[in-house]
Amino acid sequence: MPVHGKMEEQLYQKACKVLPGGISRNVVYRKPHPYYVSEASGCYVTDIHGVKRIDFANNIASLIHGHAHPQIVESVTRQISRGTAFTIGTEAEIELAELICNRVPGFGKIRFVNSGTEAVMGMIKTARAYTGKTKIAKAEGGYHGSYDAAEVSQSANPSNWGEIDNPNSVPHVPGTPRGVLDNVVVYPFNDVERTINILNRHAGEIACVIIDPVPHRIGMVQATPEFVEALYTWTRMNNALLCFDEVICFRVDYEGAQSGYNVTPDLTSLGKIIGGGFPIGAFAGRDEIMNILDPGGNDFRFPLSGTFSANPVSMTAGKIALEMLDREAMKMLNYNSTIAIRQIHEAGKLAGIPLSITGKGSMFKVHFREDAPTTYRESYEDAALKKIMTLFLDKMYEEGIIMINSCSCVLSTVVTQKEIDILSEAMLNSFRHIKPFLNS
Amino acid sequence: MPVHGKMEEQLYQKACKVLPGGISRNVVYRKPHPYYVSEASGCYVTDIHGVKRIDFANNIASLIHGHAHPQIVESVTRQISRGTAFTIGTEAEIELAELICNRVPGFGKIRFVNSGTEAVMGMIKTARAYTGKTKIAKAEGGYHGSYDAAEVSQSANPSNWGEIDNPNSVPHVPGTPRGVLDNVVVYPFNDVERTINILNRHAGEIACVIIDPVPHRIGMVQATPEFVEALYTWTRMNNALLCFDEVICFRVDYEGAQSGYNVTPDLTSLGKIIGGGFPIGAFAGRDEIMNILDPGGNDFRFPLSGTFSANPVSMTAGKIALEMLDREAMKMLNYNSTIAIRQIHEAGKLAGIPLSITGKGSMFKVHFREDAPTTYRESYEDAALKKIMTLFLDKMYEEGIIMINSCSCVLSTVVTQKEIDILSEAMLNSFRHIKPFLNS
Repeated sequence: MPVHGKMEEQLYQKACKVLPGGISRNVVYRKPHPYYVSEASGCYVTDIHGVKRIDFANNIASLIHGHAHPQIVESVTRQISRGTAFTIGTEAEIELAELICNRVPGFGKIRFVNSGTEAVMGMIKTARAYTGKTKIAKAEGGYHGSYDAAEVSQSANPSNWGEIDNPNSVPHVPGTPRGVLDNVVVYPFNDVERTINILNRHAGEIACVIIDPVPHRIGMVQATPEFVEALYTWTRMNNALLCFDEVICFRVDYEGAQSGYNVTPDLTSLGKIIGGGFPIGAFAGRDEIMNILDPGGNDFRFPLSGTFSANPVSMTAGKIALEMLDREAMKMLNYNSTIAIRQIHEAGKLAGIPLSITGKGSMFKVHFREDAPTTYRESYEDAALKKIMTLFLDKMYEEGIIMINSCSCVLSTVVTQKEIDILSEAMLNSFRHIKPFLNS
Repeated sequence: MPVHGKMEEQLYQKACKVLPGGISRNVVYRKPHPYYVSEASGCYVTDIHGVKRIDFANNIASLIHGHAHPQIVESVTRQISRGTAFTIGTEAEIELAELICNRVPGFGKIRFVNSGTEAVMGMIKTARAYTGKTKIAKAEGGYHGSYDAAEVSQSANPSNWGEIDNPNSVPHVPGTPRGVLDNVVVYPFNDVERTINILNRHAGEIACVIIDPVPHRIGMVQATPEFVEALYTWTRMNNALLCFDEVICFRVDYEGAQSGYNVTPDLTSLGKIIGGGFPIGAFAGRDEIMNILDPGGNDFRFPLSGTFSANPVSMTAGKIALEMLDREAMKMLNYNSTIAIRQIHEAGKLAGIPLSITGKGSMFKVHFREDAPTTYRESYEDAALKKIMTLFLDKMYEEGIIMINSCSCVLSTVVTQKEIDILSEAMLNSFRHIKPFLNS
């Protein structure tokens, strides 16, 4: 399958004149140029040469039913001919809100925004306004979008991360005000003792502790029940909120990743799959907290608007997508993922490479090591490893498979055994391709 | 025309169970309940009772061709059947980027995001990363979306705004960290001397001075050329960037509001109309600055992704919308707006009420006073005035006209003399309706 071509090169040259680096999102950046899509259907993406590949990236985990699902296309097309955005309420937003709030026990009320970034920002601002406290705590390496407080230490590395007992608040972008960094407490994921010690040093000042229970950028290591329960208990004792970031990981279970724990977060941020392939974000949680957003309420503290928030296109697509993702569909999706993981393990054995796989539900990440990482610092990928990962991803693309550039896969409900077989075959070939480099 | 009904009440009761205040955006909040839309076409919006009204709100100025424009519907429908979001580049993003950058002289490169809020946040983070400085300056009362630094003093009022020579940095939401407030310098819009004095006190620390040249929440008063030039000169002398927020006001002229000034901003944030009715945001500016977003460049400083950024649906709709908004269409749109303003002035005289109208191009705001406000503090609307404004807006709605709740109108290209006549007739009736309250 041709990968690099003159057409891509020409598009990229045009793009470089008007887009920094020729791209609109860093995830699509590739050398010598990005790939370009023509169209997509189900789990197949066709590039500008007409070559079809199987999509295990699904727009960074945001498509739960693959591309252009007929039912979503039909409903959205109907909505678009009736208008896409109004200065007036719609039934569509009420219906999606009911669907999500009825689905997850901890969701009393929900507020829709336009992206995962806005969802986390809204959640943090809600926690601050509700508690009257200004600090937030987040895991080192955790990705929570582009709000500057939320992205502190997202890219911490050995040169700047500091002592594990007291990780530095590392700015993700230069120019981040000291006053932002000082209000972000960074804890080591899954390390109960150190984390509680760190939180205790800021007790009384922390509005919320944020955790993504299946963090994509922390090796996709699952948060242990002990860790989540420790955070929960600490927040109860210190008048702070426990905030889950489920923008990515809501897809892992019917009621979201939080259903895997014995505690209920106070607030949860959402995005990706709840928009059915269209821009969306949301945060949801306990009535008492969410009511600070009610402009007519006695406890109104947080005025929040948004031109495209709850637009009927995203609402309609999200509703159809979640309705189709019923318990049965979720069960099958996650079952298929376990099959894929099993077959990839077999491919790893056949190729004779060190391999471990982390993740949950329909998302998993491939590590070229025997023992899976358990912490952010263990999972940190240095330049040498990143080079091998790029070799691997390029080979997979050549083999007809689109993955996320962290060497992760996410499945959609339209994947069948046929695509899983192609995936594991491609993995075998790509494992063999990188094997010489792993040994050196 | 029926306005309040049992159907709305029932929807609102359902909504209040799952959405704080029963709404997703504060702009749709109304007592005793919001209105609900069924469908819209052109400049007509049909409510759930089947009643049609003329839309002069256009989803808070975001629809430049009204609702469901056939050409946009057709192109977007085709795109949706080919997929809505990929982890791979598209030609659509390159085409829209070329179109916008070719249109505005100061736009070297552009980055797409998902909302005006994200656009302003991205612009501020770019300015900070480029200059290495942390403070931003913004106008008291200026609305720039929901990023906490950008919304400081957006809702400043007489009880907290402080001395005009040194306005307080007033948090918009409780819990805003002191470290955020301390990095926002607030200046009085259009007041050259005071503003320069204030900026001088923070010289050396300011990354950028932000200005919306036709600020909706500062009485929609136009920034004077003297003021904008003073800001430009100050930023040249102090290694700071001049940033225009044109999320709303890009619609006022073919090359945006900046074409009305003799200076070129370093960066500009965009949103609203450039998405053709779909979620979008962007920031654009000088190559040298924008290049810090290039992950492959020598000056890479600002890593920025976004799941739905530059999605092909918003890109396709935006391209069609801007192509249709050629110089001729823009001229006609703005001409129609002057006709509307003239007729509304006549209605004001007939009704015998004090009236002034501010704004530019296709957006204008009605003030119930003889002399238009010239500053934020003059334009501040107290509770008594807001009550009259609500009476007016309710009456306008009853008369079949949808306005923005600031008593503003924005026209779209599909408005004709017929709708302008209905608008001014409705204004006359509504002016008469509120006249007794204006006198008291």
